[in-house]
Amino acid sequence: MANEKITSRDVDFAQWYTDVVSAAKLASYANVKGCIAILPNGYAIWEKMQEILDKKFKELGHVNVQMPLLIPENLMKKEGELVNGFAPEVAWVTQGGQKDLLERLCIRPTSETLFSDYYHEAVKTYRDLPLLYNQWCNVLRWEKETRPFLRSREFLWQEGHTIHETKEEAEEEVRRMMEVYKWFHHEILAIPSVTGRKTEKEKFAGAEYTLTNEALMYNGVSLQCGTSHFFGQKFSKAYDIKFQNRENKLEYVYQTSWGTTTRMIGGLIMVHSDDKGLVLPPRIAPKKTVIIPIGTDDDIKEYADNLCELLNKNDITTYVDKTDKSPGFKFAEAEVNGIPIRIEFGRRDFENNQITLTRRDTSEKISVSKDSDLVKEVSELLETIQKDMYDRALKRRNELTFEATNLDELREIMENHPGFTKAMWCGDVACEDKIKEIKGCKSRCIIEGEKPISDVCVCCGKPAKHMLYWDIQY
Amino acid sequence: MANEKITSRDVDFAQWYTDVVSAAKLASYANVKGCIAILPNGYAIWEKMQEILDKKFKELGHVNVQMPLLIPENLMKKEGELVNGFAPEVAWVTQGGQKDLLERLCIRPTSETLFSDYYHEAVKTYRDLPLLYNQWCNVLRWEKETRPFLRSREFLWQEGHTIHETKEEAEEEVRRMMEVYKWFHHEILAIPSVTGRKTEKEKFAGAEYTLTNEALMYNGVSLQCGTSHFFGQKFSKAYDIKFQNRENKLEYVYQTSWGTTTRMIGGLIMVHSDDKGLVLPPRIAPKKTVIIPIGTDDDIKEYADNLCELLNKNDITTYVDKTDKSPGFKFAEAEVNGIPIRIEFGRRDFENNQITLTRRDTSEKISVSKDSDLVKEVSELLETIQKDMYDRALKRRNELTFEATNLDELREIMENHPGFTKAMWCGDVACEDKIKEIKGCKSRCIIEGEKPISDVCVCCGKPAKHMLYWDIQY
Repeated sequence: MANEKITSRDVDFAQWYTDVVSAAKLASYANVKGCIAILPNGYAIWEKMQEILDKKFKELGHVNVQMPLLIPENLMKKEGELVNGFAPEVAWVTQGGQKDLLERLCIRPTSETLFSDYYHEAVKTYRDLPLLYNQWCNVLRWEKETRPFLRSREFLWQEGHTIHETKEEAEEEVRRMMEVYKWFHHEILAIPSVTGRKTEKEKFAGAEYTLTNEALMYNGVSLQCGTSHFFGQKFSKAYDIKFQNRENKLEYVYQTSWGTTTRMIGGLIMVHSDDKGLVLPPRIAPKKTVIIPIGTDDDIKEYADNLCELLNKNDITTYVDKTDKSPGFKFAEAEVNGIPIRIEFGRRDFENNQITLTRRDTSEKISVSKDSDLVKEVSELLETIQKDMYDRALKRRNELTFEATNLDELREIMENHPGFTKAMWCGDVACEDKIKEIKGCKSRCIIEGEKPISDVCVCCGKPAKHMLYWDIQY
Repeated sequence: MANEKITSRDVDFAQWYTDVVSAAKLASYANVKGCIAILPNGYAIWEKMQEILDKKFKELGHVNVQMPLLIPENLMKKEGELVNGFAPEVAWVTQGGQKDLLERLCIRPTSETLFSDYYHEAVKTYRDLPLLYNQWCNVLRWEKETRPFLRSREFLWQEGHTIHETKEEAEEEVRRMMEVYKWFHHEILAIPSVTGRKTEKEKFAGAEYTLTNEALMYNGVSLQCGTSHFFGQKFSKAYDIKFQNRENKLEYVYQTSWGTTTRMIGGLIMVHSDDKGLVLPPRIAPKKTVIIPIGTDDDIKEYADNLCELLNKNDITTYVDKTDKSPGFKFAEAEVNGIPIRIEFGRRDFENNQITLTRRDTSEKISVSKDSDLVKEVSELLETIQKDMYDRALKRRNELTFEATNLDELREIMENHPGFTKAMWCGDVACEDKIKEIKGCKSRCIIEGEKPISDVCVCCGKPAKHMLYWDIQY
């Protein structure tokens, strides 16, 4: 049964998205244009994302720090490409303590400048390297068009900033962190993102190159969720980050940064959710199951409490809905909030010695004997849901991935079939610009390791160097 | 052996504090005046504080959210006392996306306005209550004099904001959260803070009353670490937060807020640390022990790794210092970083079948048989250190707590004995103002439940209503 507060996904995708955000109480619009308040249901997802990623970062030797929110204009300007890339979209503090400031302060849109400024002071010799720092924080970009989670002026993210003794070690870090994001999307979020390299045109301002994870939404639009940048010595030269190397010579460090944001919550919604509301893959769901006892008999209530305790003890986060709402209302609420499994039972179930597990993703009902090993039953079902959600998302991605070998095909696909379009490319920015004009699609990434579609550029017919993925982006 | 980078605490307390912050690599000054970069050693302490407090908040039913960083001037102005209290010390964003803004946006100095604005939309009936929200975030106050952790323009904190159906329930929340802070100081930070109520003059702008925890530093100066405010219906009237009560009538909600900050890291330093650097109570120390094997023999290195694994498995966070530095250098580094126990052993220890545990707080060395239950030995020693540190801090607090029954005594104490001064008070702000003039001391809090020192006000001689604690503050 669809939720009456939610527009159908196939009728109006944009409205459906906003309705799900609102009905599942993930966020609400705030009094400041382009900013949102992340509500408990939404923030719990972000906490879970933080918990899983932070553990992984630390296993790989990273430590957390906190750099300031504000960047003096002069410091920001030291690396020219970065400031040019971000200048149009920053917010400036010009007054503090009732006085006009002598120098404007920018609210961080990203923190390469602050980390570089610190590294300049902190590093003396190769013994100080590598420094593997990360921070969880808020950043601000003065976007014109905003949408909850997908693009808002303020958002939350993590930004890793590392410096290394050698180019090889830094490039290895760039790849390693891209693999972490890929693992997170595939294994935790059940999102089969594709991983590749941005073109020169689309790379991060100031980077030598940018690796990216691109996820395909249900409607065929692409969402960038997680990038990893190799800076080489660009920032270390601009900010004078030198170290004494093993040959006793002064050398500039090699630098990386990598980040991912609350935007992934938007991605989760647009890949998995449906007309009944949020659908969460079990591994990222803050609450894995909800128990809804039907009726007020003591033995039923007691059984619910005991089962809840048993599941929680076994790391299956669970709660009993004890409100005085009707069972139908409770079912709808569990559905809209995306709880992966609903566990229900009443008098008749007890007489038949069974309880019912209902899958959120398929609505399938499964009767289970009360005497079975319920921790095992529930755990296995959660893993099945996780796998099925990934498989469905992958199937959808494959269905919405097209190939074009010439401009006419490319135009036909872009105009009629939203999704990834694969096409060969000569590497020339003129061809990239020309294709972009067709429908406003941007190149998503250069993919390596896939079988070439043809030998020639889809646009100019010259020999192809790369395969590009194209799509409209959020 | 004192650390040569650290000024003696008894010679120059302020310089000693700065030296410890720097030598233990807790924070560094950033390029923005009055702001700091919190470095890995400092941020790990904050993460531990967050972990312990967040768990406690959630056990009490609170959930986390994230409100925006920016507050439009108009929204900020709705509650007059709050804006008057904070107006002198906020920073304003006046430009965004290369344009001047039509309305200035304030960087949050605190978020009562944003929560109230949200609650206005979110609450309809008593069934929606209580809402027990908290957020971990950064705030900004344009301070003139700043010191790392103690007072910086940007700092990190948590702010709880709750709304309730009844005055009684809200007041219960205010008290409950003050007890949480008190528990945290006493049980985790080993800081015997005193808990009381702020006078009308010193309470939070906009509050009906403010409860506070005041901690006494080693040098006798007081640090406010954690406050809990009862707002009554002040904000709910200013922001129109009404609900339909059980009698079907519209009523304004009762509101609280409570917060504590990275300033507690400064408190930890100033209560416990010494001329060798940081001293951390075991329960808040990110790393409980460090293992320093002496020599390069394989059996010694292998034993170190096995012991490390054993301790970590038993939740005693431990690492082996495997750098190629000398043992003496490693000892000094463990000391300056405040690791509660250093575990060391070399060939001769092995021949005697023993290892040595060295307490950071007292420098005492304890020989332990290699065959003993080392998890038990280390756990017990950590608990002993925790208790001893609390006891020493309490002894110091008692030594630095004075009583005055008349103005001459009060003046003599304030001028010669830094510390808490207890004195009776009539409740009149004129007396409070007069005492403040003596030495710039502020009233810290009204204490209830302690035996009165006399029947009359220390200042005017009229009948006393309360006992006040006085001190200089950070």
